[in-house]
Amino acid sequence: MTAIKPQKTDTAKSSNPPADSKERVSQFMKQLQDEICLGLEELDGQEKFQEDSWEREEGGGGRSRVLKEGAILEQGGVNFSEVWGENLPPSILKQRPEAEGQGFYATGTSMVLHPRNPYVPTVHLNYRYFEAGPVWWFGGGADLTPYYGFGEDAAHFHRTYKAVCDKHHQEYYPVFKRWCDEYFYLKHRQESRGIGGLFFDYQDGQGSLYRGPYKDSLAANYSKELGDIEPRTWEELFSFVQDCGRAFLPAYVPIAQRRKDTEYGDRERDFQLYRRGRYVEFNLVYDRGTIFGLQTNGRTESILMSLPPLVRWEYCYQPEPNTPEAELYETFLKPQDWANWH
Amino acid sequence: MTAIKPQKTDTAKSSNPPADSKERVSQFMKQLQDEICLGLEELDGQEKFQEDSWEREEGGGGRSRVLKEGAILEQGGVNFSEVWGENLPPSILKQRPEAEGQGFYATGTSMVLHPRNPYVPTVHLNYRYFEAGPVWWFGGGADLTPYYGFGEDAAHFHRTYKAVCDKHHQEYYPVFKRWCDEYFYLKHRQESRGIGGLFFDYQDGQGSLYRGPYKDSLAANYSKELGDIEPRTWEELFSFVQDCGRAFLPAYVPIAQRRKDTEYGDRERDFQLYRRGRYVEFNLVYDRGTIFGLQTNGRTESILMSLPPLVRWEYCYQPEPNTPEAELYETFLKPQDWANWH
Repeated sequence: MTAIKPQKTDTAKSSNPPADSKERVSQFMKQLQDEICLGLEELDGQEKFQEDSWEREEGGGGRSRVLKEGAILEQGGVNFSEVWGENLPPSILKQRPEAEGQGFYATGTSMVLHPRNPYVPTVHLNYRYFEAGPVWWFGGGADLTPYYGFGEDAAHFHRTYKAVCDKHHQEYYPVFKRWCDEYFYLKHRQESRGIGGLFFDYQDGQGSLYRGPYKDSLAANYSKELGDIEPRTWEELFSFVQDCGRAFLPAYVPIAQRRKDTEYGDRERDFQLYRRGRYVEFNLVYDRGTIFGLQTNGRTESILMSLPPLVRWEYCYQPEPNTPEAELYETFLKPQDWANWH
Repeated sequence: MTAIKPQKTDTAKSSNPPADSKERVSQFMKQLQDEICLGLEELDGQEKFQEDSWEREEGGGGRSRVLKEGAILEQGGVNFSEVWGENLPPSILKQRPEAEGQGFYATGTSMVLHPRNPYVPTVHLNYRYFEAGPVWWFGGGADLTPYYGFGEDAAHFHRTYKAVCDKHHQEYYPVFKRWCDEYFYLKHRQESRGIGGLFFDYQDGQGSLYRGPYKDSLAANYSKELGDIEPRTWEELFSFVQDCGRAFLPAYVPIAQRRKDTEYGDRERDFQLYRRGRYVEFNLVYDRGTIFGLQTNGRTESILMSLPPLVRWEYCYQPEPNTPEAELYETFLKPQDWANWH
């Protein structure tokens, strides 16, 4: 047979990770955890993060950091982990069958903040990197969940991430913003989790998800939309992920500072506790990372650090018409073009 | 071909449901809801259940009843539903492939109580009946979740149900008790949800689950243990389910009455709210009914009525040694032979 290789293989070779890819990404993930924790301690001004280091029997480990009962943060958790093993879980192999039978490596940083003041939004961030035999990919994002909606806060959050995206490619923001809206959606409530932000997964610079026989239509569809800007190199994607990670403090801290001293009473606190229930429902019913972790013997306390310190459920609650609570549902829990808000 | 039918078919025919099976079971399920609500209103002495009737677009409906902020019940929900449609969901068809392509009918009553006083246990009950073409089955049970453990309460609850079981068959209690222990188990916490009770599913009097190529090993294993007492008739099983349902008030009310006036402070309340988190985790991560309902467009508010009105999560909480809280974990959150407690 003559050796005419299909173009895809050549392209894949040209974007192989560098020899020190794992060290570079895990070092960045640790730095990101450090940087975010320092920035949040400065914001809180009262409490510090407490760290637990843990090891995973099958390989690797992590460091979990929690700040409890702060002046601004009722609870904040920032996890770093770096794990390896013989087989990726079935839920991921379904998406990346080329990784079957390969050892894997995964590293990432994730964070959820539950502020005390109902006017300060809850926020989530996660960036992760996988290698498994011939395949590798980056995933992640950040999304904001206000209890009381402010257009200027939503606009600031989205514009910060749009600027990061636009530095790398004009198509990133529109695609990853819609992917976020679609991912953080509670089907059983027919509600968005919050005002969104960015979300992406399986970014390998090859658009493999829409070229292969993959099952996750959401990821495949969004990867297809990015098809015309492929291929991207490992270095380009890593640089993008680093810029996203470093954008968190400027995206969130000004919002928290603007709202942290707003006065509130039982009404606002009750509404916040009620809305936190949606966060629990999303994380336990839909979130891939949470479900995967719980079902595969992850460190439960680190995985469930994302759950709020206090939560309320109320049968058949409906906000009164023409209140800020009703406005949250009508305006902020539906996808909006926040970057163009004015 | 000569018409030699396999014996299984003959046996199946002999236990066909009567012509009015649906009416009789749904009427019982409604009566059970009425009876339980009346008994609980009497126990509470302060608040009454409020009812919402609802209809399901695809066929059927239900009536949801909630009692909020009572003297004893911080929240209690009792649902009746009767639904029908063209196809059972895939999760059930996996267990009963004979029902493929058949219209289905399902009716049931379910209940969860969240008492205010941490010395009064949370309790759950559910009984259900399915028909789909050639197959039919009963399922259900009841289980108790104390915050502070008392041997006499656990023994009373189990003995009440054991007496009901023994009236029908000596093998019911030992099998359905262990099935309950296994079903209400939080793998990610390596904890039982509470002190158990009874649980059974796919009871068709034929032991079909262990004779067929079924996937649910838990149900198949327990059905196999019952194999030597098969076949049972529809009437026998319906009579057993009725007796179980009617045993709830005598199983629970004396416990609630015994504990309702026990004094408690912030410590006990905090522990109760923390432990309620496990109820949320079980219902959203593992419970078949909840997950099925949420994923198939059920009435969300009725499904999630089981979630507690107020819940706490605390990172890395551990009870102090030699406290009642530690005793709960050490003694009550592990399967025990409560019927023989002394």
